[in-house]
Amino acid sequence: MAICTLLTDFGLRDYYVGAVKGTLLKGAPGSVIVDLTHQIEAGDVEGAAWVLAAALPSFPAATVHLAVVDPGVGSRRRLLAARVADQYCVAPDNGLLTKVFDGAQVHAVDRRDLFLEAAGATFDGRDRFAPISAYLLRGGRIDDLGPIIDDPVRLTLETATRNGTRIVGRVVHVDHFGNLVTNIPSEWCTRPLRRARAGSLEVRQSADYYAELAAGETAVLPGSMGTLEISMRDGDAAAASGLKRGVRVQIDLE
Amino acid sequence: MAICTLLTDFGLRDYYVGAVKGTLLKGAPGSVIVDLTHQIEAGDVEGAAWVLAAALPSFPAATVHLAVVDPGVGSRRRLLAARVADQYCVAPDNGLLTKVFDGAQVHAVDRRDLFLEAAGATFDGRDRFAPISAYLLRGGRIDDLGPIIDDPVRLTLETATRNGTRIVGRVVHVDHFGNLVTNIPSEWCTRPLRRARAGSLEVRQSADYYAELAAGETAVLPGSMGTLEISMRDGDAAAASGLKRGVRVQIDLE
Amino acid sequence: MAICTLLTDFGLRDYYVGAVKGTLLKGAPGSVIVDLTHQIEAGDVEGAAWVLAAALPSFPAATVHLAVVDPGVGSRRRLLAARVADQYCVAPDNGLLTKVFDGAQVHAVDRRDLFLEAAGATFDGRDRFAPISAYLLRGGRIDDLGPIIDDPVRLTLETATRNGTRIVGRVVHVDHFGNLVTNIPSEWCTRPLRRARAGSLEVRQSADYYAELAAGETAVLPGSMGTLEISMRDGDAAAASGLKRGVRVQIDLE
Repeated sequence: MAICTLLTDFGLRDYYVGAVKGTLLKGAPGSVIVDLTHQIEAGDVEGAAWVLAAALPSFPAATVHLAVVDPGVGSRRRLLAARVADQYCVAPDNGLLTKVFDGAQVHAVDRRDLFLEAAGATFDGRDRFAPISAYLLRGGRIDDLGPIIDDPVRLTLETATRNGTRIVGRVVHVDHFGNLVTNIPSEWCTRPLRRARAGSLEVRQSADYYAELAAGETAVLPGSMGTLEISMRDGDAAAASGLKRGVRVQIDLE
Repeated sequence: MAICTLLTDFGLRDYYVGAVKGTLLKGAPGSVIVDLTHQIEAGDVEGAAWVLAAALPSFPAATVHLAVVDPGVGSRRRLLAARVADQYCVAPDNGLLTKVFDGAQVHAVDRRDLFLEAAGATFDGRDRFAPISAYLLRGGRIDDLGPIIDDPVRLTLETATRNGTRIVGRVVHVDHFGNLVTNIPSEWCTRPLRRARAGSLEVRQSADYYAELAAGETAVLPGSMGTLEISMRDGDAAAASGLKRGVRVQIDLE
Repeated sequence: MAICTLLTDFGLRDYYVGAVKGTLLKGAPGSVIVDLTHQIEAGDVEGAAWVLAAALPSFPAATVHLAVVDPGVGSRRRLLAARVADQYCVAPDNGLLTKVFDGAQVHAVDRRDLFLEAAGATFDGRDRFAPISAYLLRGGRIDDLGPIIDDPVRLTLETATRNGTRIVGRVVHVDHFGNLVTNIPSEWCTRPLRRARAGSLEVRQSADYYAELAAGETAVLPGSMGTLEISMRDGDAAAASGLKRGVRVQIDLE
């Protein structure tokens, strides 16, 4: 059975998610729909890009990922369909796919015949993204959706750097538990940690998992995305420190 | 495969939604369950009525919509099963189906043999609505659920009015993004907008989509339900204005 | 089709739930995934134990319940797979299964060959619990997962007591509506209620359902789990009283 994931900033209290799901099931009966999240902050394209890239590797071949965080809905921004390894993504051309473009084949969708006739121009999730996704779920060829392009909108994503024992990166995600997820590859910590600094927070210990720490202690851990995280045992490191996505993280090894 | 949507005020942190789903899957194996929302405010029958009517048209034939916002659970209020075009709704007789009654065939369910024996009288979602829905999902005939009635409880829903260039309606829904959704048909705006007033909010521009506006600007837009909405670009019109559902909206055209 | 429920403290705004679902669908194609809740408070093992025990009876035979509230992730705490009547549970050995152990056959999972190679040691939900659950969903034998044990970690759960007309119990759950769910069996109220006390709250009436009460009135009702609840009509008894889980409840019958 074809799988379709959903990633939006629609929230969970409206009819929006239901209408997208109904449209998918009407257009591709028998599909399995999986919510990634609908709680991306309104218009937070970068946050959506991170979650999509983190979840995608767990899904089987031929999965279709429908991602709609789309402040430009209704304007002339393009609608993209991308083949990412053996999976598919359908999203607006606003950078949402930035973190999965590597090696991807990206098409600008040009199939108005598939779109729904609809009231208003503010719900492309239902009226355009869902029918395009249903087409792929039914086994439609992505090559027939529109021309391959090489100029999709890309977010500027800084990568971490290292120089001797000094590593510099950023917090790229704050998760539900308040873990401060960085863009620093865990394997860069080849030697013991001397100190990690992020804003006014200073951390002097590392760990492999939370239970190594005493309650309330903060440490640097290798996270589930392959990058370092700053975490507090039985606590919320982000709330305790006041740090947010984007803050610079500097790590000094011994 | 039979589809069953769920619309409740149960929230997402309890066992209630899971118990309803388990009961549906036990009674109608293989059904596809779709959450519309479980975040209707506790007891807000009118809010539920709006979301149900907005989502229903996106679903395929034979879908069963199980809607439980039911402050009267346990009392003698009737349990309804309705055929709405080619779909079905199961809900308490408290007005929840008001916006889909038009042309519907409404039955008062009279099938205690289908109900579950259960502890307490406070969880009809699990004990009565789910088994009745499972019966329909299995292909059971709605005509065998109980007599057709013509006196279901109806909410009083005001409709918008127009007189020359003046249109008067109400905010009938505030969505996740803070859009103030009105009951004024979008096609009534046949001429340029001179002014829209809602409470102390005055809006002097219209748009087709958000990206036409500068950040923070508020405008009147044709929304995804076929009615006008008051929206703020990259902002929350409801929070900024303090307006809520029910407020009067007056629009003057040129 | 095999059913897998999910019960976690992962929240809904991250990639965690999606990654678990993708792993399940990759390992056991065609499975039906049902969210119990992902909004257990971070690390609240007792809260998770209550929700699991409440939902489980509604599910059909062979359902697999994957429950991850796991502050000890990455440490040497065991991973359990349990046969509970005709269903299965997969959870960390931290007491989460306490309320379903009665009559259960509990295995300590010893199948590293099934685990995923993964970055970090903080996401066993994806890397260990999901593959073990997928194995059961595919029809794998629980007896091959590891040895039967008789010493799983158990939470200390007080039971209610009665002495003549006096009943003493505790609030064991506060639900979404603010109902204070106790551990006092509803059938113990064999005579009219004289008084119920919980903290500074005193209740002098009982009811069978909310609609018997006037708005804002508080009463003791038989709840949907077979135990008594303290509820407020059209209100939130927990918020109004400030009472939380764990508070002592004393009931005096006439």
